[in-house]
Amino acid sequence: MSLAATGSKDATRATALVYSTYGRPTEVLKVLKHTLEPPTEDSVQVQFLASPINPADINQIEGVYPLKPPMTTGLYASSASTSSDERPPVAVGGNEGVAVVTKVGPKAGHVFKVGDWVVMGSAGLGTWRSHGNFRAKDLTKVRTVEKMNEGGDSSDLDVIQLATLTVNPCTAYRMLRDFRTLSPGDFIIQNGANSGVGEAVIQLAKPLGVKTINIIRNRPGHEEVAERLKSLGATHILTDDQLGKLETKELVKSWVQKGEVKLGFNCVGGKPTTEMARLLSKNGHLITYGAMSRQPLILPASLQIFKNVHASGFWLSAWNEQHSSEERQEMIDRVLESMKQGQFAEVNCTRNQWSIVSADVSALEGRLLEAIKKATASGFGKQVFVME
Amino acid sequence: MSLAATGSKDATRATALVYSTYGRPTEVLKVLKHTLEPPTEDSVQVQFLASPINPADINQIEGVYPLKPPMTTGLYASSASTSSDERPPVAVGGNEGVAVVTKVGPKAGHVFKVGDWVVMGSAGLGTWRSHGNFRAKDLTKVRTVEKMNEGGDSSDLDVIQLATLTVNPCTAYRMLRDFRTLSPGDFIIQNGANSGVGEAVIQLAKPLGVKTINIIRNRPGHEEVAERLKSLGATHILTDDQLGKLETKELVKSWVQKGEVKLGFNCVGGKPTTEMARLLSKNGHLITYGAMSRQPLILPASLQIFKNVHASGFWLSAWNEQHSSEERQEMIDRVLESMKQGQFAEVNCTRNQWSIVSADVSALEGRLLEAIKKATASGFGKQVFVME
Repeated sequence: MSLAATGSKDATRATALVYSTYGRPTEVLKVLKHTLEPPTEDSVQVQFLASPINPADINQIEGVYPLKPPMTTGLYASSASTSSDERPPVAVGGNEGVAVVTKVGPKAGHVFKVGDWVVMGSAGLGTWRSHGNFRAKDLTKVRTVEKMNEGGDSSDLDVIQLATLTVNPCTAYRMLRDFRTLSPGDFIIQNGANSGVGEAVIQLAKPLGVKTINIIRNRPGHEEVAERLKSLGATHILTDDQLGKLETKELVKSWVQKGEVKLGFNCVGGKPTTEMARLLSKNGHLITYGAMSRQPLILPASLQIFKNVHASGFWLSAWNEQHSSEERQEMIDRVLESMKQGQFAEVNCTRNQWSIVSADVSALEGRLLEAIKKATASGFGKQVFVME
Repeated sequence: MSLAATGSKDATRATALVYSTYGRPTEVLKVLKHTLEPPTEDSVQVQFLASPINPADINQIEGVYPLKPPMTTGLYASSASTSSDERPPVAVGGNEGVAVVTKVGPKAGHVFKVGDWVVMGSAGLGTWRSHGNFRAKDLTKVRTVEKMNEGGDSSDLDVIQLATLTVNPCTAYRMLRDFRTLSPGDFIIQNGANSGVGEAVIQLAKPLGVKTINIIRNRPGHEEVAERLKSLGATHILTDDQLGKLETKELVKSWVQKGEVKLGFNCVGGKPTTEMARLLSKNGHLITYGAMSRQPLILPASLQIFKNVHASGFWLSAWNEQHSSEERQEMIDRVLESMKQGQFAEVNCTRNQWSIVSADVSALEGRLLEAIKKATASGFGKQVFVME
């Protein structure tokens, strides 16, 4: 069953994938057909172009993620004919996406023009929707309409790359930048190297002249994964079963020579991460941004006391919250610039069409929930909604 | 059997507790009776007043500590009559102690005067001896002869407090200072709170207005330990069996109110330290300086990612190596000032007399090794050599 609400005749007809209670995404998500009033004051209205389904989005709907967007009745137009029983407070799913500005509120004209492309400046805004009204300060430009008219900036980056820009590449960018000053010839080491963040790390490190030691899992097909990472610019590859061995320590030493392994990026946890931490140089810094193994980080005291290895976490949502929209814009500009220099590879994903003019809400809902189902199962790869 | 060496008639007759191979301290340590030539150039000669036996000293002799002082034949005077077979290269045990300057080399007079009291500016100098020659830059003043003639500075600190100043109180001082800016009303939490460092933390935090949450072991006599820590200025006490319980979390919350637990000091490791880390406030920093449980540090990824808890190690020997003698002097001055303000409690220890004019070397050796034996066994408390 789909929810429905209607609005005034100036309003935009829109669809959104929403939930009113936490639970299994395929069970609690519904398409809400609704109308959007024109943006007021310093807000803009956007039409989404593409929005990915990320693991954190799923955890958020399950209610197990620390960021919980407030549920509101704001999506229902005041003139809605449905009764309040049919209008439960909802949150729109999704945290990441790229959109085009379609209407500009009276005080937002100095920031955005119709036609500008934007990404989300913070988490919890809800990106699984055809259209939405957002405060200008919550959005960050990725292409200006002027530049696009001149032939386009970021012209070698497609809509999927832009839609998946604000989580993985921005996490990689900040981790490379905020903990140590990296110079050409320095090394970083990372596990989960073929994750979205891992691939972004490789591609952002390359134009900096920073060398990468990349740990992947030794399972069938790992040679192809290694080839792909090398094609992105990975300097060295290790499989997880090589960790903890004396010859691996010697191998890394031969790669690093007089350089330093200044940073380690960890999205795995458990014993293999301990072994990765041992490969850091003196004064190295291990940054944890995930825990795929669901195991904690285990650090020998000697590594911390005598080798002065530090351990910190990184969460982009917290960074975004603590920094201004100008700082976020600067980050996006620089990531885009690095992406262009690194010639970022195409994002491997399945495109799931979201017909924004679709009249058949239940057919749309069926298609969107199919994409959610694939995103929560394994073996289907990354799923992205593409709004057309 | 004791080793012996003799020198010129200007030389000072000295004894030192030395080892020529790594092993069990009571088996490898010997008294070396020897002579010291007058100090040359920018060196001074000192007579030790008191030198403690620390756990790291024992580990060093066992060969399991990362700092290994080089073994040399420097202690044997050139005129030694013994054959080279009887003069194996040796290192003098001990890393901490207080000494009085007895002779000043030609270029050291602008730094030290005869009668000044000094402590060691770095590790590995060998403090278990009656006399020694040291470079001026390796020593730090704790009392000047001028001030002593005026009635004494640091006059409320006794020789044992000064002898045990450079390891525990200096570690506590740096950990309180180097990781977060602490203001009155801020909290720190620590385990092993009745260790030498733990007690120093309490006493150095007090004059800063910094409140301390102190974790001790729940074993017979823990009430007396708690009373002692409270008499030193401890704000709150927890026993380790309270860790990980919901009511303890609530209790700490009620203590801290709107304050912040900015720092945690860990000398234990393992699961109890994980539970202590959970009591840190957002952005808190856990400093590991020991691992009494011989367990590693275990940190949940969520604590690092979402709560932004950092983990670092601290090792005073590395700090001393990386900082100038002026910076070490400043630290000692400030620690002494804080100690006086906090009215540091007497150090609980057993004083083991080291007769510096003793002619009976084997009797001396017996007494010194008895102290070493007590220091390596449990239940005898802290052992200090007092040279008289």
